[in-house]
Amino acid sequence: MNSFFQRVQFASRRNNSVLCVGLDPDISKMPAHIAKSKEPLYDFLAPIIDATHDKVCCYKPNIAFYEAYGTRGIEQLIKVIEHIRGLEMDIPVILDAKRGDIGNTAKAYAHTLFDYFRADAVTVSPYMGGDTLQPFLDYVARGIIILCLTSNPGYSDFETLESDGEPLFIHVAKKAAEWNTKENIALVVGATHPEEAAKVRAAAPEIPFLMPGIGAQGGDPAEIMKIGFTKSGFPPIVNSSRGILYASAEEDFAEMAGKAAVEVRDKLNRYIET
Amino acid sequence: MNSFFQRVQFASRRNNSVLCVGLDPDISKMPAHIAKSKEPLYDFLAPIIDATHDKVCCYKPNIAFYEAYGTRGIEQLIKVIEHIRGLEMDIPVILDAKRGDIGNTAKAYAHTLFDYFRADAVTVSPYMGGDTLQPFLDYVARGIIILCLTSNPGYSDFETLESDGEPLFIHVAKKAAEWNTKENIALVVGATHPEEAAKVRAAAPEIPFLMPGIGAQGGDPAEIMKIGFTKSGFPPIVNSSRGILYASAEEDFAEMAGKAAVEVRDKLNRYIET
Repeated sequence: MNSFFQRVQFASRRNNSVLCVGLDPDISKMPAHIAKSKEPLYDFLAPIIDATHDKVCCYKPNIAFYEAYGTRGIEQLIKVIEHIRGLEMDIPVILDAKRGDIGNTAKAYAHTLFDYFRADAVTVSPYMGGDTLQPFLDYVARGIIILCLTSNPGYSDFETLESDGEPLFIHVAKKAAEWNTKENIALVVGATHPEEAAKVRAAAPEIPFLMPGIGAQGGDPAEIMKIGFTKSGFPPIVNSSRGILYASAEEDFAEMAGKAAVEVRDKLNRYIET
Repeated sequence: MNSFFQRVQFASRRNNSVLCVGLDPDISKMPAHIAKSKEPLYDFLAPIIDATHDKVCCYKPNIAFYEAYGTRGIEQLIKVIEHIRGLEMDIPVILDAKRGDIGNTAKAYAHTLFDYFRADAVTVSPYMGGDTLQPFLDYVARGIIILCLTSNPGYSDFETLESDGEPLFIHVAKKAAEWNTKENIALVVGATHPEEAAKVRAAAPEIPFLMPGIGAQGGDPAEIMKIGFTKSGFPPIVNSSRGILYASAEEDFAEMAGKAAVEVRDKLNRYIET
């Protein structure tokens, strides 16, 4: 287990939480006084981070929601990450970017995400194959989280196509296990398909899972906690975004986000086998 | 054929060229006086665009090489695209980004690439399935170029896995043909695997190809021109980047880029069947 996963585990134990809050800002859902501010993304997320950081194991901003506001959005993403760095406890940051490109280009992406934004982990797309992930994997102290079994309806277009008796997502899981010589790989495994997620767990017993799809998408906390742990007991990183960020659109939005985080955390913890 | 492809075809006829120049700036390869300037990406590419725009059918900046320089890189990408808009002839811009994410997030990416950067076309990754591409496809006048058969060595990790007797890249090509109701889809088909590229052409006879892999990667111009045209005669969009941008590292870099573009263009044209 490399330093990124160690830090997640430490935060998870300290906060008794497998919850990762997805920091995906949407100005149309924010309280009016924040939406009108000069830096609405930051002004919205900073108080939410303050109210939730002792209830999570990590944060996951999706870069798309910042890029959508151009360079001003990018600057606010940097401020959001700096704000997390300034907390009194170490909470790692997964930058959700799902990048994937040939060698030189992948190197430029890895540099941007790891050196410019200083992400602790990133998400990447496996479609183009192992050489396109290598520049990310070369960052041995960071986390490289590979799309495997996703939670969206269209996952069955390609991810479930069977080859040699196994679906594509199992081929991805097995390759990930093979590439994991530095123990810096995790997999995105949607919480919405528990039977298929269990197959990924069987194919890659020691690879940590980032699990989206709880909340609005209907993933079952009991199933997540049954499947999500690695054989050695590394916990699933369970992402929730909208249900926490937009718990209230009033002045009390941060407080309510904190309460929502506690609820999700406790709901998940109820299913930890002791 | 939608307006993006019509514009490519018009530029292609006017300039008698199927060449797309990949605008992937690398400061370490630029002439010293440019590398030291305040806006090296723009200062390098603007004269290259001036020297090549009457020899190409489109340009393809890869966003990774701009993001790597943070917000200053992003600002220069905008200037590069504006510079292309300011040319006396219309040359469309493909923004190579290879994005792919769930609905809301894909919508944010599409907004960024099409509305903020004002790209005429973008590249996207198919791994997560059709619903993740829909927000891009909704831009009916733009080009959506889906990764299919890529030119990198690792393409055989997943793209060639066979399901129901056909490799993944053929499943992608067939789905793309099915999704192409607005005639705004193209496919990335590497020039380095001509036999497999020919299978994509057979599976999707009317889908335009963006073909990387000529030049350094060794793609054969004769094969490209044999396979690349659609059944109705829409030409392949053949990308070359480094061979043209870095034809010279001296003061004459732009002039030499122009000459290199003519060479590649003419080499490709030699194989047009008349």
